[in-house]
Amino acid sequence: MYFDHAGIATEDADALASLYADLFNTRVAHEEQFGDLRVVFLPFGESYFELLEPTDGGTVQRYLDDNGPGIHHLALGTDDIEASLARAKTSGAELIDEEPRPGAWGHDVAFLHPKSTGGILIEFVEH
Amino acid sequence: MYFDHAGIATEDADALASLYADLFNTRVAHEEQFGDLRVVFLPFGESYFELLEPTDGGTVQRYLDDNGPGIHHLALGTDDIEASLARAKTSGAELIDEEPRPGAWGHDVAFLHPKSTGGILIEFVEH
Repeated sequence: MYFDHAGIATEDADALASLYADLFNTRVAHEEQFGDLRVVFLPFGESYFELLEPTDGGTVQRYLDDNGPGIHHLALGTDDIEASLARAKTSGAELIDEEPRPGAWGHDVAFLHPKSTGGILIEFVEH
Repeated sequence: MYFDHAGIATEDADALASLYADLFNTRVAHEEQFGDLRVVFLPFGESYFELLEPTDGGTVQRYLDDNGPGIHHLALGTDDIEASLARAKTSGAELIDEEPRPGAWGHDVAFLHPKSTGGILIEFVEH
């Protein structure tokens, strides 16, 4: 597996993207509305920051209400998400998504529960 | 800049490394005692998870006391850390380290204050 992206919760994805472009010499590679989220991707080498702005409530809004802006999840890329999920489950991970589901940017994604991964919300993603 | 690593605070770096090796099909690439931390690196493609276990108090212990285990910081790699720091400062970042200092694994590192980066503790690192 490889490091695909860090998901970052924010109240204003466009303002944060502009700040990061200046601070870190990056740019917007992709942006879209995905469900109740505005999502903006900024490249860092082969990986990304995925900025997540809730536009109509949902889990990221609840995260912001509880924690304020910050790192929401880490995403590991795989060429075979079903095999990666099967391995993680066999090794004791609690799966939030038993099967991959459509994610932002046309990718397949599945999440693992933080209580089984050292307190970190982990996403598996297959492009 | 490229994505170098995610720093993860834990009470037991070896147990978490063993869990991640199983869950994510990775391995320990490097481990050391660095100041008041036991540090274990696990590769994910060109990037790493850096597991941070406090052994004698310090800032990561305070993070654990306040937040429990989880993502402590994100590290961006650069070929010229002084130039990256100068750019970030000019763009409005508040620097915790005005100059690079020695970090784990023999790298040069410098941290940016979360209040100037959208709530995220960002590290710059040069190998």
